[in-house]
Amino acid sequence: NNFPTAAGLASSASGYAALVSALGVLFDLPESTSDLSRVARVGSGSACRSMFGGFVAWQAGVSNDGHDSFAVQVAGHNHWPELQALILVASDKKKAISSTAGMQTTVETSELFAERVRTVVPKRMDAMQRAIAERDFAAFAEITMRDSNQFHAVCLDTYPPISYMNDTSRSIVGLVHAFNDARGRIAAAYTYDAGPNAVIYALKDDMRHLVELFTYCFPRDEAMLPEAFYPDPFAIFDSADQVGQRLTDPSTARLAEAAGKFPSGSVCRIIHTEVGDGPRVLPASDSLLDHAGMPKRAKA
Amino acid sequence: NNFPTAAGLASSASGYAALVSALGVLFDLPESTSDLSRVARVGSGSACRSMFGGFVAWQAGVSNDGHDSFAVQVAGHNHWPELQALILVASDKKKAISSTAGMQTTVETSELFAERVRTVVPKRMDAMQRAIAERDFAAFAEITMRDSNQFHAVCLDTYPPISYMNDTSRSIVGLVHAFNDARGRIAAAYTYDAGPNAVIYALKDDMRHLVELFTYCFPRDEAMLPEAFYPDPFAIFDSADQVGQRLTDPSTARLAEAAGKFPSGSVCRIIHTEVGDGPRVLPASDSLLDHAGMPKRAKA
Repeated sequence: NNFPTAAGLASSASGYAALVSALGVLFDLPESTSDLSRVARVGSGSACRSMFGGFVAWQAGVSNDGHDSFAVQVAGHNHWPELQALILVASDKKKAISSTAGMQTTVETSELFAERVRTVVPKRMDAMQRAIAERDFAAFAEITMRDSNQFHAVCLDTYPPISYMNDTSRSIVGLVHAFNDARGRIAAAYTYDAGPNAVIYALKDDMRHLVELFTYCFPRDEAMLPEAFYPDPFAIFDSADQVGQRLTDPSTARLAEAAGKFPSGSVCRIIHTEVGDGPRVLPASDSLLDHAGMPKRAKA
Repeated sequence: NNFPTAAGLASSASGYAALVSALGVLFDLPESTSDLSRVARVGSGSACRSMFGGFVAWQAGVSNDGHDSFAVQVAGHNHWPELQALILVASDKKKAISSTAGMQTTVETSELFAERVRTVVPKRMDAMQRAIAERDFAAFAEITMRDSNQFHAVCLDTYPPISYMNDTSRSIVGLVHAFNDARGRIAAAYTYDAGPNAVIYALKDDMRHLVELFTYCFPRDEAMLPEAFYPDPFAIFDSADQVGQRLTDPSTARLAEAAGKFPSGSVCRIIHTEVGDGPRVLPASDSLLDHAGMPKRAKA
């Protein structure tokens, strides 16, 4: 995996899923991916989800030893090709508290956590699976935002409280609601994991306006090249010079100008991606190790 | 009242309580203060509490018209003279959303709010009244912090979410927990109302260390005079030059140096106070109006 480590971007989940997948392939294990997801879960809870591509549900289970807690694929990665994601990296710095330790304190000390698990989450899991099956973006987006907010609410209800989001994260929340208000429909959703970085979901056609909005409002640090700040894999801009300089849609332009520019570097980079296909065996030529098992040198 | 307006410092509560008290005295109304608190409540919910001095409980009531929702005094203002408060004003700016409107959205959209009201608040109201009666600072402080965190948790669980605290507020939360850890007991508590400003509670002897800590870590903006930034009503410092320059306690000094200095002006001023005696009729010489009803001129 190639994500920043311990910054609340699911680097552990990705890493453990990659490790368990690799071991499964290496030893030619007969277990199903859901079975292997039980193993990955022991390393990092959410790693069980990362064993699949596409859309994945992590089933809670009721047993104390966790053997009935595993992941299942809800839909393949080709099910909803218009759905894209934008990751606004608000900080690369290491978190003060690891997610696993944080979540355990929440379970022990938050009085609202039990209510969330008992009444809210099961309802939302059903509604979310329906929204994905029907490719209903507005429903998908509203559940995503409400659930992100509630996850951070129970973190704050922990004692001592846990705050993963910072002022930049909260400004992005405000911008997404303002963007939806300006369009008169729910066109974008935010979600925050255990860190200040925002994951923004939108359909492809709306995503180009969002990329223009965020690159305008969150200017890159001067030390960062435009193509490193926003690599533009879907060719939103004609050239890297346009990143942060162009607002083609009038209502988005009005919104961007009302919000103004935040201090440069508040968002250090923006990753634009789509629904992935999960762990994959790469060809030997992509290995990071040479034949002797030593790390390869980076090309000059 | 002389507090900044609409900054989350209960300016409306203070203002409506002052108005209703004044009308009660002017028309020589026979109603008890609790009865008058019902009237104040209509202006701003928490105004009913500000009708009294000392320690006050606001009773929820069950009626839809709110006639059984009023305040009672739990203890007089001389009950616990060692208890002091420090208000760290993180922002004088007007809030984007008024507290009354914010709370109504929370009631309508937060799924955790009902649980808080049903199971958590009644338990804490009892425990808090006991802590005050017994002058048990550790119990008082822990309930205060947990309840502040949970109030902000349900604000975040509102849709769209409400965030009153900012990065400065969250740093202060971290500092208070670190201060308590360093002392090996709960020596200070924070609470946040509908704004980013912190109210810190501590007993008089600990307060001097906290004042030194906060004035060190949150340096005043250069444009602010030391005596306006922290007026020092209880003579913590020998002179205004020492504000932010002195750390007499070694463990607090270590903590302050580990935390470092935040950007100057992050806290714009610090108000140090004790439990008040509630609305008071001032002598005619303190009136802001002259005999003709015109505003007096400020003295040169």
